[in-house]
Amino acid sequence: MDLTKGIPIIKYDNGMVLPLEDMVVKEYALTIMLDGEEFITLLCTPSSLDCLTVGFLLSESIIKSKSDIKRIRIDEEKGIAEVSTIDSSMIAKNLHGKRTSTTGCGKGSTFYNAVDSISCRKIMGSMEIDAKAILELMRDFNKRSELFMNTGGVHSVALGTDTDIMLFHEDVGRHNAMDKIVGEASLKDIELSDKIVLTSGRVSSEMLIKAAKAQIPVIVSRSAPTDLAVELASQLGITVIGFARGQRMNIYSNPERIKFQ
Amino acid sequence: MDLTKGIPIIKYDNGMVLPLEDMVVKEYALTIMLDGEEFITLLCTPSSLDCLTVGFLLSESIIKSKSDIKRIRIDEEKGIAEVSTIDSSMIAKNLHGKRTSTTGCGKGSTFYNAVDSISCRKIMGSMEIDAKAILELMRDFNKRSELFMNTGGVHSVALGTDTDIMLFHEDVGRHNAMDKIVGEASLKDIELSDKIVLTSGRVSSEMLIKAAKAQIPVIVSRSAPTDLAVELASQLGITVIGFARGQRMNIYSNPERIKFQ
Repeated sequence: MDLTKGIPIIKYDNGMVLPLEDMVVKEYALTIMLDGEEFITLLCTPSSLDCLTVGFLLSESIIKSKSDIKRIRIDEEKGIAEVSTIDSSMIAKNLHGKRTSTTGCGKGSTFYNAVDSISCRKIMGSMEIDAKAILELMRDFNKRSELFMNTGGVHSVALGTDTDIMLFHEDVGRHNAMDKIVGEASLKDIELSDKIVLTSGRVSSEMLIKAAKAQIPVIVSRSAPTDLAVELASQLGITVIGFARGQRMNIYSNPERIKFQ
Repeated sequence: MDLTKGIPIIKYDNGMVLPLEDMVVKEYALTIMLDGEEFITLLCTPSSLDCLTVGFLLSESIIKSKSDIKRIRIDEEKGIAEVSTIDSSMIAKNLHGKRTSTTGCGKGSTFYNAVDSISCRKIMGSMEIDAKAILELMRDFNKRSELFMNTGGVHSVALGTDTDIMLFHEDVGRHNAMDKIVGEASLKDIELSDKIVLTSGRVSSEMLIKAAKAQIPVIVSRSAPTDLAVELASQLGITVIGFARGQRMNIYSNPERIKFQ
């Protein structure tokens, strides 16, 4: 499916008025049907909808792993993701929670429980990464952000090793982009405890909790974290890096994973 | 309440490692209690919480006007907004809807009905504004975005006449900032049908629907709109302007409101 759409606009430039065509990013409604019941509608960029569906269900703790899913069928035209699970009564139990609305670009809404962050296991892994390697990854990440460059309307999230970017997704919602990463990693059985996440957007508490649930130890952003995200990161053993640009970055929590030479 | 917090960080700059203090933006959990029942928790910037509460309830069509509210009490310390309404059975009816999760920065979640956009009245007003006046307002708007400049973590939304900015809010969520504007306008009985909204963030379908519900005819962004937002704007009679920077802007819908000299 096309991710952008050309539409007629009027450009105003210092007194000049010019009718022309501009590319805007598509915003697509995907309704997740869970065992035949309508569950939620996500507004998203229409790419990797299977990854988004699996990642969303994992991030929200509706499923514990991809093996809880019997079948996914995406109907792109109707905007429906039909998910059959292996145990619908367990799913119904997982759904029973508090609803929190969030600061996030991106899906933003979450069946999120006040104790969710506490139920995340603290990340103890011994992963280490060189500061220079992070800035190198960030340069590569910036180069890949094509949809953003074309339309100015999306966020990117990538999954990296200490030398390479393995997975990359773009979405009008940065939380969707993160869920696509988590979903694709799950579908491809990629171990996350020795990887880092790169994001173009802010690190809010919800982004942090998504990383924690997926057991990703390092999150690097071109932008800023919030105080709550840093606090949760300290508790949950996640290294948060912000303003990673050019030769610089700020390390907000758990700096022991970063090697400085 | 403070909107930012100083935290110890490690700054890495081209091989140099410097421990110092950095300011990060606060992310605060506000739980709205509706007639004694827990309704939703918004993650937001802790300012103008009364405006946010009223604006959120208006934008979600939980209330029709501020006169539906008997009393609001904000407990800043506990993070609770207690709202008593004049008719709790009517509120319960309004709550009955479909839940959609959105692309938005900001609260993002919405008890949003597929036909919500259709139930918005088309904006027919004869409001006109000069292109130069819009760019002038945008310059003023940019100057005011203080919290963003300090922390890099928030979005701003303002309400303007054709000559002045009347209301201004910042929030970690751009939808919250918009709700604060709608809420303050309602509390101060400000007529919106001849005003414009300025925003630092993307114009998604949800931002557009918020403007439509509030009957605001023009929305101007420093950033991009999505295709769905432009489509809804055309249907609902809203003028959408994007990339308003310096001497330039793009007009995506209903350009008849803009005077070019």
